[in-house]
Amino acid sequence: MSTTPPPIAGRPGRFVCLEGPDGAGKSTQASRLAETLRDRGIEVVSCRDPGGTPLGDRLRALVKEHGDVAIGLRAEMLLFMASRAQLVEEVILPALEAGQVVVCDRFLLSNVVYQGYAGGLEVEEIWRVGRAATGGLMPDLTLLIDVPPAVARSRTGGPRDRIEDRGEAYRARVREGFLQASATYPAPIVVVDGAAGVDEVARRIESEVGRVLGSDPRS
Amino acid sequence: MSTTPPPIAGRPGRFVCLEGPDGAGKSTQASRLAETLRDRGIEVVSCRDPGGTPLGDRLRALVKEHGDVAIGLRAEMLLFMASRAQLVEEVILPALEAGQVVVCDRFLLSNVVYQGYAGGLEVEEIWRVGRAATGGLMPDLTLLIDVPPAVARSRTGGPRDRIEDRGEAYRARVREGFLQASATYPAPIVVVDGAAGVDEVARRIESEVGRVLGSDPRS
Repeated sequence: MSTTPPPIAGRPGRFVCLEGPDGAGKSTQASRLAETLRDRGIEVVSCRDPGGTPLGDRLRALVKEHGDVAIGLRAEMLLFMASRAQLVEEVILPALEAGQVVVCDRFLLSNVVYQGYAGGLEVEEIWRVGRAATGGLMPDLTLLIDVPPAVARSRTGGPRDRIEDRGEAYRARVREGFLQASATYPAPIVVVDGAAGVDEVARRIESEVGRVLGSDPRS
Repeated sequence: MSTTPPPIAGRPGRFVCLEGPDGAGKSTQASRLAETLRDRGIEVVSCRDPGGTPLGDRLRALVKEHGDVAIGLRAEMLLFMASRAQLVEEVILPALEAGQVVVCDRFLLSNVVYQGYAGGLEVEEIWRVGRAATGGLMPDLTLLIDVPPAVARSRTGGPRDRIEDRGEAYRARVREGFLQASATYPAPIVVVDGAAGVDEVARRIESEVGRVLGSDPRS
Protein backbone atom coordinates (compact mmCIF):
# COMPACT_ATOMS: atom_id res chain seq x y z
CA MET A 1 0.00 0.00 0.00
CA SER A 2 1.21 3.50 -0.83
CA THR A 3 0.60 6.38 1.58
CA THR A 4 2.30 8.98 -0.62
CA PRO A 5 0.66 9.12 -4.04
CA PRO A 6 3.07 9.74 -6.91
CA PRO A 7 2.75 13.19 -8.58
CA ILE A 8 0.30 13.77 -11.43
CA ALA A 9 0.89 16.74 -13.73
CA GLY A 10 3.53 18.27 -11.52
CA ARG A 11 1.57 18.45 -8.28
CA PRO A 12 1.86 15.77 -5.64
CA GLY A 13 -1.71 15.69 -4.23
CA ARG A 14 -5.02 14.40 -5.60
CA PHE A 15 -8.33 16.23 -5.93
CA VAL A 16 -11.44 14.08 -5.61
CA CYS A 17 -14.90 15.56 -5.92
CA LEU A 18 -18.38 14.19 -5.18
CA GLU A 19 -21.28 15.56 -7.19
CA GLY A 20 -24.98 14.82 -7.53
CA PRO A 21 -28.47 16.06 -6.64
CA ASP A 22 -29.52 16.85 -3.07
CA GLY A 23 -30.36 13.58 -1.35
CA ALA A 24 -27.84 11.56 -3.38
CA GLY A 25 -25.78 10.89 -0.26
CA LYS A 26 -22.73 13.02 -1.17
CA SER A 27 -21.99 14.31 2.34
CA THR A 28 -22.26 10.83 3.88
CA GLN A 29 -20.03 9.34 1.21
CA ALA A 30 -17.51 12.19 1.41
CA SER A 31 -17.15 11.60 5.17
CA ARG A 32 -16.83 7.83 4.69
CA LEU A 33 -14.21 8.25 1.98
CA ALA A 34 -12.15 10.70 4.04
CA GLU A 35 -12.29 8.36 7.03
CA THR A 36 -11.25 5.33 4.98
CA LEU A 37 -8.32 7.17 3.45
CA ARG A 38 -7.17 8.51 6.82
CA ASP A 39 -7.36 4.99 8.31
CA ARG A 40 -4.85 4.04 5.62
CA GLY A 41 -2.44 6.81 6.66
CA ILE A 42 -3.28 9.20 3.84
CA GLU A 43 -3.51 12.90 4.69
CA VAL A 44 -6.97 14.11 3.70
CA VAL A 45 -8.42 17.62 3.52
CA SER A 46 -12.25 17.59 3.44
CA CYS A 47 -14.17 20.59 2.20
CA ARG A 48 -17.49 21.59 0.74
CA ASP A 49 -18.34 23.97 -2.07
CA PRO A 50 -19.80 26.53 -1.51
CA GLY A 51 -18.07 27.11 1.82
CA GLY A 52 -14.80 25.83 3.24
CA THR A 53 -13.31 29.29 3.97
CA PRO A 54 -14.47 32.22 6.12
CA LEU A 55 -15.54 34.06 2.92
CA GLY A 56 -17.17 30.93 1.51
CA ASP A 57 -19.14 30.27 4.69
CA ARG A 58 -20.53 33.81 4.60
CA LEU A 59 -21.48 33.48 0.93
CA ARG A 60 -23.01 30.03 1.48
CA ALA A 61 -25.25 31.43 4.22
CA LEU A 62 -26.17 34.41 2.04
CA VAL A 63 -27.15 32.27 -0.98
CA LYS A 64 -29.07 29.60 0.93
CA GLU A 65 -31.03 31.70 3.42
CA HIS A 66 -34.68 32.53 2.78
CA GLY A 67 -34.04 36.21 3.43
CA ASP A 68 -35.40 39.44 1.99
CA VAL A 69 -32.28 39.92 -0.15
CA ALA A 70 -33.22 39.25 -3.79
CA ILE A 71 -30.60 37.14 -5.64
CA GLY A 72 -31.06 36.55 -9.38
CA LEU A 73 -29.73 33.48 -11.16
CA ARG A 74 -26.65 35.25 -12.56
CA ALA A 75 -25.74 36.74 -9.18
CA GLU A 76 -26.31 33.35 -7.53
CA MET A 77 -23.98 31.66 -10.01
CA LEU A 78 -21.31 34.34 -9.47
CA LEU A 79 -21.53 34.10 -5.66
CA PHE A 80 -20.89 30.35 -5.88
CA MET A 81 -17.95 31.13 -8.18
CA ALA A 82 -16.51 33.67 -5.73
CA SER A 83 -16.74 31.13 -2.91
CA ARG A 84 -15.03 28.53 -5.14
CA ALA A 85 -12.23 30.91 -6.17
CA GLN A 86 -11.40 31.47 -2.50
CA LEU A 87 -11.66 27.75 -1.70
CA VAL A 88 -9.22 26.89 -4.51
CA GLU A 89 -6.71 29.56 -3.47
CA GLU A 90 -6.94 29.18 0.30
CA VAL A 91 -7.53 25.44 0.77
CA ILE A 92 -7.37 23.18 -2.29
CA LEU A 93 -4.17 24.34 -4.03
CA PRO A 94 -2.10 24.48 -0.80
CA ALA A 95 -3.31 20.96 0.12
CA LEU A 96 -2.48 19.57 -3.33
CA GLU A 97 0.95 21.19 -3.22
CA ALA A 98 1.50 19.58 0.19
CA GLY A 99 0.74 16.16 -1.33
CA GLN A 100 -2.61 15.72 0.43
CA VAL A 101 -5.81 14.22 -0.94
CA VAL A 102 -8.65 16.75 -1.15
CA VAL A 103 -12.19 15.35 -0.87
CA CYS A 104 -14.67 18.03 -1.88
CA ASP A 105 -18.47 17.90 -1.56
CA ARG A 106 -19.54 19.54 -4.88
CA PHE A 107 -17.47 21.72 -7.25
CA LEU A 108 -17.91 23.55 -10.55
CA LEU A 109 -20.15 20.89 -12.13
CA SER A 110 -22.92 21.75 -9.63
CA ASN A 111 -22.96 25.35 -10.89
CA VAL A 112 -23.11 24.17 -14.49
CA VAL A 113 -26.07 21.91 -13.66
CA TYR A 114 -28.09 23.97 -11.14
CA GLN A 115 -27.84 27.38 -12.84
CA GLY A 116 -27.21 26.13 -16.38
CA TYR A 117 -29.01 22.89 -17.33
CA ALA A 118 -31.74 23.35 -14.68
CA GLY A 119 -31.80 27.15 -14.33
CA GLY A 120 -31.47 28.22 -17.95
CA LEU A 121 -28.21 30.20 -18.00
CA GLU A 122 -25.96 29.39 -20.95
CA VAL A 123 -23.91 26.32 -20.04
CA GLU A 124 -20.79 27.36 -21.99
CA GLU A 125 -20.82 30.73 -20.26
CA ILE A 126 -20.78 29.06 -16.84
CA TRP A 127 -17.81 26.91 -17.87
CA ARG A 128 -15.97 30.07 -18.96
CA VAL A 129 -16.69 31.84 -15.66
CA GLY A 130 -15.63 28.65 -13.88
CA ARG A 131 -12.25 28.77 -15.58
CA ALA A 132 -11.76 32.33 -14.32
CA ALA A 133 -12.79 31.26 -10.79
CA THR A 134 -10.58 28.17 -10.52
CA GLY A 135 -7.67 29.23 -12.72
CA GLY A 136 -8.41 26.05 -14.71
CA LEU A 137 -8.12 23.59 -11.79
CA MET A 138 -10.30 20.50 -12.29
CA PRO A 139 -10.68 17.43 -10.04
CA ASP A 140 -8.48 14.40 -10.78
CA LEU A 141 -11.64 12.35 -10.26
CA THR A 142 -15.30 13.34 -10.02
CA LEU A 143 -17.79 10.82 -8.65
CA LEU A 144 -21.31 11.62 -9.80
CA ILE A 145 -23.77 9.92 -7.45
CA ASP A 146 -26.96 9.42 -9.43
CA VAL A 147 -30.30 8.72 -7.75
CA PRO A 148 -33.88 8.68 -9.04
CA PRO A 149 -35.95 11.64 -7.70
CA ALA A 150 -38.03 9.35 -5.45
CA VAL A 151 -34.92 8.10 -3.62
CA ALA A 152 -33.47 11.63 -3.33
CA ARG A 153 -36.78 12.90 -1.93
CA SER A 154 -36.90 10.20 0.74
CA ARG A 155 -33.41 11.21 1.93
CA THR A 156 -33.81 14.98 2.16
CA GLY A 157 -35.52 15.57 5.50
CA GLY A 158 -35.81 18.79 7.44
CA PRO A 159 -36.38 22.31 6.17
CA ARG A 160 -35.38 23.06 2.58
CA ASP A 161 -33.05 25.96 1.72
CA ARG A 162 -33.72 28.59 -0.96
CA ILE A 163 -32.39 26.40 -3.79
CA GLU A 164 -33.79 23.03 -2.66
CA ASP A 165 -37.17 24.76 -2.51
CA ARG A 166 -37.48 25.15 -6.31
CA GLY A 167 -39.86 22.25 -6.84
CA GLU A 168 -40.08 18.87 -8.54
CA ALA A 169 -39.58 20.00 -12.13
CA TYR A 170 -36.37 21.86 -11.20
CA ARG A 171 -35.06 18.82 -9.32
CA ALA A 172 -35.83 16.56 -12.28
CA ARG A 173 -33.86 18.91 -14.57
CA VAL A 174 -30.98 18.83 -12.06
CA ARG A 175 -30.76 15.03 -12.25
CA GLU A 176 -30.95 14.99 -16.05
CA GLY A 177 -28.46 17.86 -16.20
CA PHE A 178 -25.86 15.96 -14.17
CA LEU A 179 -26.16 12.96 -16.49
CA GLN A 180 -26.00 15.08 -19.65
CA ALA A 181 -23.08 17.16 -18.41
CA SER A 182 -21.14 14.07 -17.35
CA ALA A 183 -21.17 12.88 -20.98
CA THR A 184 -19.03 15.85 -22.09
CA TYR A 185 -17.26 16.59 -18.77
CA PRO A 186 -13.69 17.73 -19.55
CA ALA A 187 -12.08 15.68 -16.73
CA PRO A 188 -12.29 12.10 -15.40
CA ILE A 189 -15.80 11.35 -14.13
CA VAL A 190 -17.53 8.16 -12.98
CA VAL A 191 -21.28 7.81 -12.51
CA VAL A 192 -22.09 5.80 -9.37
CA ASP A 193 -25.55 4.29 -8.75
CA GLY A 194 -26.56 6.01 -5.54
CA ALA A 195 -29.73 3.93 -5.15
CA ALA A 196 -27.61 1.01 -3.92
CA GLY A 197 -26.98 0.61 -0.18
CA VAL A 198 -24.65 3.07 1.56
CA ASP A 199 -21.94 0.41 2.06
CA GLU A 200 -22.06 -0.70 -1.55
CA VAL A 201 -21.81 2.91 -2.81
CA ALA A 202 -18.87 3.50 -0.43
CA ARG A 203 -17.05 0.41 -1.73
CA ARG A 204 -17.54 1.51 -5.35
CA ILE A 205 -16.22 5.02 -4.55
CA GLU A 206 -13.19 3.65 -2.64
CA SER A 207 -12.35 1.41 -5.55
CA GLU A 208 -12.47 4.29 -8.07
CA VAL A 209 -10.47 6.59 -5.79
CA GLY A 210 -7.91 3.82 -5.22
CA ARG A 211 -7.26 3.72 -8.94
CA VAL A 212 -6.58 7.47 -9.04
CA LEU A 213 -4.27 7.26 -6.02
CA GLY A 214 -2.17 4.71 -7.87
CA SER A 215 -3.15 1.94 -5.48
CA ASP A 216 -6.39 0.53 -4.07
CA PRO A 217 -6.81 2.16 -0.62
CA ARG A 218 -8.58 -1.00 0.59
CA SER A 219 -5.52 -3.12 -0.11
CA MET B 1 -35.71 70.31 -25.63
CA SER B 2 -36.66 66.66 -25.45
CA THR B 3 -37.62 65.06 -22.12
CA THR B 4 -38.26 61.63 -23.61
CA PRO B 5 -35.18 60.34 -25.40
CA PRO B 6 -35.93 58.38 -28.57
CA PRO B 7 -35.24 54.63 -28.34
CA ILE B 8 -31.78 53.22 -29.12
CA ALA B 9 -31.49 49.54 -30.07
CA GLY B 10 -35.04 48.76 -29.03
CA ARG B 11 -34.95 50.08 -25.47
CA PRO B 12 -36.21 53.53 -24.61
CA GLY B 13 -33.78 54.54 -21.81
CA ARG B 14 -30.12 55.53 -21.76
CA PHE B 15 -27.30 54.09 -19.66
CA VAL B 16 -24.53 56.53 -18.74
CA CYS B 17 -21.56 55.44 -16.68
CA LEU B 18 -18.75 57.37 -14.94
CA GLU B 19 -15.42 55.64 -14.55
CA GLY B 20 -11.98 56.58 -13.28
CA PRO B 21 -9.54 56.19 -10.38
CA ASP B 22 -10.46 56.99 -6.78
CA GLY B 23 -10.24 60.76 -6.32
CA ALA B 24 -11.18 61.52 -9.94
CA GLY B 25 -14.41 63.13 -8.79
CA LYS B 26 -16.84 60.51 -10.16
CA SER B 27 -19.33 60.64 -7.30
CA THR B 28 -19.48 64.46 -7.33
CA GLN B 29 -19.94 64.50 -11.10
CA ALA B 30 -22.52 61.70 -11.05
CA SER B 31 -24.62 63.71 -8.54
CA ARG B 32 -24.24 66.92 -10.58
CA LEU B 33 -25.22 65.17 -13.79
CA ALA B 34 -28.28 63.53 -12.24
CA GLU B 35 -29.38 66.86 -10.77
CA THR B 36 -28.93 68.70 -14.07
CA LEU B 37 -30.92 66.09 -15.98
CA ARG B 38 -33.73 66.08 -13.38
CA ASP B 39 -33.89 69.88 -13.54
CA ARG B 40 -34.65 69.42 -17.24
CA GLY B 41 -37.54 67.03 -16.52
CA ILE B 42 -35.69 63.83 -17.35
CA GLU B 43 -36.33 60.81 -15.11
CA VAL B 44 -32.98 59.70 -13.70
CA VAL B 45 -32.01 56.60 -11.74
CA SER B 46 -28.68 57.02 -9.93
CA CYS B 47 -26.71 54.01 -8.76
CA ARG B 48 -23.24 52.87 -7.87
CA ASP B 49 -21.40 49.68 -8.68
CA PRO B 50 -20.71 47.75 -6.50
CA GLY B 51 -23.89 48.34 -4.55
CA GLY B 52 -27.26 49.69 -5.55
CA THR B 53 -29.29 46.69 -4.36
CA PRO B 54 -29.66 45.00 -0.95
CA LEU B 55 -27.39 42.16 -2.18
CA GLY B 56 -24.93 44.64 -3.71
CA ASP B 57 -24.72 46.72 -0.54
CA ARG B 58 -23.88 43.60 1.48
CA LEU B 59 -21.22 42.55 -1.03
CA ARG B 60 -19.78 46.08 -1.22
CA ALA B 61 -19.34 46.14 2.56
CA LEU B 62 -17.81 42.66 2.50
CA VAL B 63 -15.25 43.50 -0.20
CA LYS B 64 -14.23 46.89 1.16
CA GLU B 65 -13.99 46.19 4.88
CA HIS B 66 -10.62 45.60 6.51
CA GLY B 67 -11.89 42.42 8.19
CA ASP B 68 -10.34 39.08 9.00
CA VAL B 69 -12.05 37.43 6.00
CA ALA B 70 -9.38 36.71 3.37
CA ILE B 71 -10.51 37.60 -0.19
CA GLY B 72 -8.20 36.71 -3.08
CA LEU B 73 -8.15 38.66 -6.34
CA ARG B 74 -10.31 36.16 -8.25
CA ALA B 75 -12.93 36.05 -5.47
CA GLU B 76 -12.88 39.84 -5.26
CA MET B 77 -13.48 40.14 -8.99
CA LEU B 78 -16.35 37.63 -8.83
CA LEU B 79 -18.00 39.38 -5.86
CA PHE B 80 -18.04 42.64 -7.84
CA MET B 81 -19.54 40.70 -10.75
CA ALA B 82 -22.27 39.20 -8.55
CA SER B 83 -23.17 42.66 -7.27
CA ARG B 84 -23.24 43.95 -10.86
CA ALA B 85 -25.43 41.07 -12.09
CA GLN B 86 -28.01 41.92 -9.43
CA LEU B 87 -27.77 45.66 -10.17
CA VAL B 88 -28.41 45.06 -13.88
CA GLU B 89 -31.38 42.75 -13.25
CA GLU B 90 -32.99 44.62 -10.37
CA VAL B 91 -32.30 48.29 -11.20
CA ILE B 92 -30.68 49.12 -14.55
CA LEU B 93 -32.73 47.01 -17.00
CA PRO B 94 -36.12 47.94 -15.46
CA ALA B 95 -35.13 51.64 -15.58
CA LEU B 96 -34.00 51.44 -19.20
CA GLU B 97 -37.21 49.64 -20.13
CA ALA B 98 -39.18 52.41 -18.42
CA GLY B 99 -37.39 55.00 -20.55
CA GLN B 100 -35.31 56.46 -17.73
CA VAL B 101 -31.70 57.63 -17.82
CA VAL B 102 -29.43 55.55 -15.60
CA VAL B 103 -26.35 57.34 -14.20
CA CYS B 104 -23.99 54.77 -12.69
CA ASP B 105 -20.86 55.43 -10.62
CA ARG B 106 -18.49 52.72 -12.02
CA PHE B 107 -19.36 49.58 -14.01
CA LEU B 108 -17.57 46.65 -15.65
CA LEU B 109 -14.57 48.69 -16.81
CA SER B 110 -13.50 49.21 -13.18
CA ASN B 111 -13.24 45.43 -12.71
CA VAL B 112 -11.21 45.10 -15.88
CA VAL B 113 -8.81 47.80 -14.68
CA TYR B 114 -8.52 47.14 -10.92
CA GLN B 115 -8.28 43.34 -11.00
CA GLY B 116 -6.94 43.01 -14.56
CA TYR B 117 -4.57 45.77 -15.68
CA ALA B 118 -3.58 46.71 -12.11
CA GLY B 119 -4.12 43.39 -10.31
CA GLY B 120 -2.73 40.94 -12.84
CA LEU B 121 -5.75 38.77 -13.70
CA GLU B 122 -6.16 38.07 -17.41
CA VAL B 123 -8.04 41.02 -18.93
CA GLU B 124 -9.87 38.95 -21.57
CA GLU B 125 -11.07 36.56 -18.87
CA ILE B 126 -12.61 39.45 -16.90
CA TRP B 127 -14.44 40.68 -20.02
CA ARG B 128 -15.83 37.16 -20.51
CA VAL B 129 -17.03 36.94 -16.90
CA GLY B 130 -18.47 40.44 -17.30
CA ARG B 131 -20.55 39.27 -20.22
CA ALA B 132 -22.00 36.48 -18.08
CA ALA B 133 -22.73 38.97 -15.26
CA THR B 134 -24.44 41.64 -17.37
CA GLY B 135 -25.98 39.49 -20.08
CA GLY B 136 -24.01 41.67 -22.52
CA LEU B 137 -25.42 45.04 -21.38
CA MET B 138 -22.95 47.89 -21.92
CA PRO B 139 -23.38 51.64 -21.21
CA ASP B 140 -24.59 53.85 -24.07
CA LEU B 141 -21.89 56.28 -22.93
CA THR B 142 -18.95 55.87 -20.56
CA LEU B 143 -17.20 59.00 -19.26
CA LEU B 144 -13.68 58.19 -18.11
CA ILE B 145 -12.51 60.95 -15.75
CA ASP B 146 -8.74 60.95 -15.92
CA VAL B 147 -6.60 62.61 -13.24
CA PRO B 148 -2.87 62.53 -12.50
CA PRO B 149 -2.06 60.58 -9.29
CA ALA B 150 -1.12 63.80 -7.42
CA VAL B 151 -4.56 65.31 -8.02
CA ALA B 152 -6.33 62.07 -7.11
CA ARG B 153 -4.31 61.82 -3.90
CA SER B 154 -5.22 65.35 -2.84
CA ARG B 155 -8.92 64.52 -3.23
CA THR B 156 -9.12 61.21 -1.36
CA GLY B 157 -9.36 62.17 2.28
CA GLY B 158 -10.44 60.06 5.22
CA PRO B 159 -9.69 56.41 5.92
CA ARG B 160 -8.88 54.21 2.94
CA ASP B 161 -10.77 50.97 2.26
CA ARG B 162 -9.16 47.58 1.57
CA ILE B 163 -8.68 48.30 -2.15
CA GLU B 164 -7.65 51.97 -1.92
CA ASP B 165 -5.01 50.83 0.57
CA ARG B 166 -2.94 49.01 -2.09
CA GLY B 167 -0.28 51.69 -2.49
CA GLU B 168 1.11 54.13 -5.03
CA ALA B 169 2.32 51.60 -7.61
CA TYR B 170 -1.12 49.93 -7.75
CA ARG B 171 -2.85 53.31 -8.13
CA ALA B 172 -0.46 54.28 -10.94
CA ARG B 173 -1.30 51.01 -12.75
CA VAL B 174 -5.02 51.78 -12.25
CA ARG B 175 -4.69 55.14 -14.00
CA GLU B 176 -2.65 53.68 -16.87
CA GLY B 177 -5.04 50.74 -17.09
CA PHE B 178 -8.07 52.99 -17.55
CA LEU B 179 -6.35 54.85 -20.38
CA GLN B 180 -5.15 51.64 -22.06
CA ALA B 181 -8.54 49.92 -21.72
CA SER B 182 -10.38 52.94 -23.08
CA ALA B 183 -8.44 52.58 -26.34
CA THR B 184 -10.08 49.21 -27.08
CA TYR B 185 -13.31 49.65 -25.09
CA PRO B 186 -16.15 47.91 -26.98
CA ALA B 187 -18.69 50.72 -26.41
CA PRO B 188 -18.77 54.54 -26.70
CA ILE B 189 -16.26 56.11 -24.28
CA VAL B 190 -14.99 59.67 -23.81
CA VAL B 191 -11.94 60.58 -21.73
CA VAL B 192 -12.57 63.74 -19.69
CA ASP B 193 -9.72 65.75 -18.12
CA GLY B 194 -10.61 65.57 -14.43
CA ALA B 195 -7.84 67.96 -13.40
CA ALA B 196 -9.95 70.88 -14.66
CA GLY B 197 -12.28 72.66 -12.21
CA VAL B 198 -15.43 70.85 -11.04
CA ASP B 199 -17.73 73.17 -13.04
CA GLU B 200 -15.72 72.76 -16.22
CA VAL B 201 -15.72 68.95 -15.90
CA ALA B 202 -19.48 69.05 -15.25
CA ARG B 203 -20.07 71.14 -18.39
CA ARG B 204 -18.01 68.76 -20.50
CA ILE B 205 -19.92 65.74 -19.16
CA GLU B 206 -23.33 67.39 -19.70
CA SER B 207 -22.37 68.18 -23.26
CA GLU B 208 -21.35 64.58 -24.01
CA VAL B 209 -24.46 63.17 -22.32
CA GLY B 210 -26.65 65.62 -24.22
CA ARG B 211 -25.37 64.18 -27.47
CA VAL B 212 -26.33 60.65 -26.40
CA LEU B 213 -29.80 61.76 -25.27
CA GLY B 214 -30.43 63.09 -28.76
CA SER B 215 -30.44 66.68 -27.56
CA ASP B 216 -28.19 68.86 -25.44
CA PRO B 217 -29.72 68.81 -21.92
CA ARG B 218 -28.44 72.38 -21.38
CA SER B 219 -30.52 73.69 -24.28
